[in-house]
Amino acid sequence: MRVEGKHYRTIWAADDGSGAVFVIDQTRLPFDFVVARLTTAAEAADAIRSMRVRGAPLIGATAAWGLALAAREDPSDVALAAAHAQLLATRPTAVNLRWALDDVAAVLAQLPPERRAAAAARRANEICDEDVAICEAIGDHGVQLIEQAWTAKGRDRPVNVLTHCNAGWLATVDWGTALAPIYKAHDGGIPVHVWADETRPRNQGASLTAWELGRHGVPHTVVVDNAGGHLMQRGLVDLCIVGTDRTTRTGDVCNKIGTYLKALAAHDCGVPFWVALPGPTIDWTIADGLHIPIEERDAEEVTHIIGRGANGRSAAVQVTPDGTSARNDAFDVTPARLVTGLITERGRCDASAAGLRRLYPERAVEER
Amino acid sequence: MRVEGKHYRTIWAADDGSGAVFVIDQTRLPFDFVVARLTTAAEAADAIRSMRVRGAPLIGATAAWGLALAAREDPSDVALAAAHAQLLATRPTAVNLRWALDDVAAVLAQLPPERRAAAAARRANEICDEDVAICEAIGDHGVQLIEQAWTAKGRDRPVNVLTHCNAGWLATVDWGTALAPIYKAHDGGIPVHVWADETRPRNQGASLTAWELGRHGVPHTVVVDNAGGHLMQRGLVDLCIVGTDRTTRTGDVCNKIGTYLKALAAHDCGVPFWVALPGPTIDWTIADGLHIPIEERDAEEVTHIIGRGANGRSAAVQVTPDGTSARNDAFDVTPARLVTGLITERGRCDASAAGLRRLYPERAVEER
Repeated sequence: MRVEGKHYRTIWAADDGSGAVFVIDQTRLPFDFVVARLTTAAEAADAIRSMRVRGAPLIGATAAWGLALAAREDPSDVALAAAHAQLLATRPTAVNLRWALDDVAAVLAQLPPERRAAAAARRANEICDEDVAICEAIGDHGVQLIEQAWTAKGRDRPVNVLTHCNAGWLATVDWGTALAPIYKAHDGGIPVHVWADETRPRNQGASLTAWELGRHGVPHTVVVDNAGGHLMQRGLVDLCIVGTDRTTRTGDVCNKIGTYLKALAAHDCGVPFWVALPGPTIDWTIADGLHIPIEERDAEEVTHIIGRGANGRSAAVQVTPDGTSARNDAFDVTPARLVTGLITERGRCDASAAGLRRLYPERAVEER
Repeated sequence: MRVEGKHYRTIWAADDGSGAVFVIDQTRLPFDFVVARLTTAAEAADAIRSMRVRGAPLIGATAAWGLALAAREDPSDVALAAAHAQLLATRPTAVNLRWALDDVAAVLAQLPPERRAAAAARRANEICDEDVAICEAIGDHGVQLIEQAWTAKGRDRPVNVLTHCNAGWLATVDWGTALAPIYKAHDGGIPVHVWADETRPRNQGASLTAWELGRHGVPHTVVVDNAGGHLMQRGLVDLCIVGTDRTTRTGDVCNKIGTYLKALAAHDCGVPFWVALPGPTIDWTIADGLHIPIEERDAEEVTHIIGRGANGRSAAVQVTPDGTSARNDAFDVTPARLVTGLITERGRCDASAAGLRRLYPERAVEER
C-alpha cells in the first residue's frame, strides 16, 4: 500500500544480485520508517523473533526468504536443516511459519546443492506474490460486507469497522487480511471509518494499524482495548473484522490476545464478527482451538510501554511498581460459535468444519 | 490499609486546627508516595478533576470535605451554592459525588452561617467513617465467596480473583470495595492471588491496584486488559470481583470501561462475576444502565502513556502516530443479566430490582 505516495511491500529482494532481502522494521514504526537489510538466515530469524516483522503471513514470507538466504550461505542438507530448525523456533503460534518453511524445503530437497540458492529465492518470491494475490482476493470477498453495511445505513454515513491488533498490509506482504476489505472499500469510494483497538501489550493497533491507515488516507480512531464493548453497545460499530494467526479446521480462531473479548461483545450486541484469513493459516490437523499452543512472551512487555519520549526518541516507561509480576500470553482463542463467518481468498464461509470443507475440498480429503 | 507497615486512610483532617485536609496524591503512585494538603474547595475540586483522588467513594468523601473547606472560607448561602456547583461539575459519572454534597448541604442549610464550618467538618468526618464501616462490611460479606471458592478447590491452592481498575482502599477511605473481601481473606489466612487488569488508559490496575496489594503483601499478577478472557477460558480465574461507580436500581453496573467485556467472558466461561458496592453508589432514579451519563475524557490519555522513565522521573510516551484521533470513554455499562450478584454493606443479593429492594427496603419505597 502507499507510504507518502509511494507503493511498498513489507518484504522485497534486493535487485543488486546480492541475494539480500529488505524488510520494513516494524519495531521503529510509527515514528520512523526504517528499512532493514537481511543477509543471513540468522538475521531473518532474529527479525521474526524480535518482531521487526510480524503477522502470520509476513512471518511465513520472511521464513521462506530466511531459508533462501541459508541456501546461499551453505546449501548442504545439514546446514539447511539447521536453518530450518532455527527459523521454526522463532514464534510458536503462527502456522504459516511451518507451512512456508516446509514448502521451500520440499522444493530444495529435490535439487542438488548448487541449484538450491536460486530455486529457494524463486520460491520465496512466489510465496510473496501468492500472499499478495491471496490478500487482494480476501479484500474482494470482504468489501462486499462493507458495501452491504453501507447500503443498510442508507449510503449516507460511513461504515464503522472495528479491528483488533494489526492484520493490515504490514502483517502480510501487501493488502493485509482484515484490512484488505477496508482498503478495497476506501479505494472504491465507500466511506469507511475504522476503530483501531490499541492492542496492548505491544500496541500494534495504536502504532501499526493507525500508521498504515493514516498513510493510505483511511479515516480511523484509536481506542483502548477496553472500549470495543461499549462502542458496540451504543451502536457505533457496524461490523468487526479481525485477522487470525491460526484457524482450526472447525473454524476456531486463534488471534492476538483480546480478540475473544471483542467477539463476545459483538455476539452480545448483534454486531457481525468476521475473521479474514489466507488458506495457509488454516491448521487442518487441529479441531479444538484450545489445543493451539499459545506463546507466552516477556513480562516486561506488560510492565514497560515503549513509545516516543519528549525528546523525540524511542523510550520505555514503567507502569507497574518495582517487582510486580506480570503475565503475557500473546494470543487467545475465539470459538467458532462466536464468529459470524470467515473471509478467505476463495470466498466467505461459515466458521465451521462444513464451511471450510466447502471452500477447501482438497484439504478435507487430506484431513480424514 | 498498610503502607510500609503504617496504617493509612486516603483522606484525613489535619490535627493542627487549620481545617486543612490531607489526601494521598494518586497521580504520583506507584512510584512516589506523596501526601497533598487541600485548604480550599477549589483545591478539593481540582484534586477530584485531576484524579489525584479518584474512585466513587473517595470522590464523595473529598467532595464532602470540599464543602467543609468552603464553609470555612465563606459560610454564606451564595458561596456554599457556588462551591457545591463547582465540586459537582468535576466528574459526571460517580453518583456518590452528588449524594455526599447533598448530604452535607442539607446539614448546613439548617444552621446559621457561623455554625456551618464546624458542622460541615463534623459531617465530612462522619461520611469518611461511614465509608470505612461500609467497606469493611462489604469485605465481611464478600470474603465468604472467596472462602467458598477455596473450599471448592480443596483448600490446597490459592483462590484466583480477577479485578478490573482499582476498587481498593485507594478508591475509598479505607478497605476498598472489590478488594475489601480480598484483604479480609488475606488477613484471615485464606490464600488468595489477584489478577489485576492494567486498565488502560489510565492504568489504575497496573499502578494503584498493584501498588496497594503489594504494600499490604497480597500476591498478585498484572495482566493487560486483553488477557482476562483467555485466563478464564483456561480455568485460571475462580471468581471476578469489580467495583462500580454507579449501579441502577435494577442492578445494571456502570464501572470503568472494559468491565462489560470481562463480565461477558465470565458469563461465557461459567466464572462467577461479583460487583462490590456501597449503598450510596446505587442510583435509585435510574432503571436502565444505558441512561447513565458516560464521561468522555481527553484523547491524550489514549495517545500518550505516563509512567516512570529511564531517569526515574515521571514521563509520557506517545504510542500513536502524530495527528491520530482517539476516543476515550471512561466507563461502560454491564447489564444485570451478566452479574452473578452484588456485594453490599448489608449483604449479598441478586443484581436485580428485587434483590436490591430486599436489602434496601426503605429506598424501594422512595423509588415508587
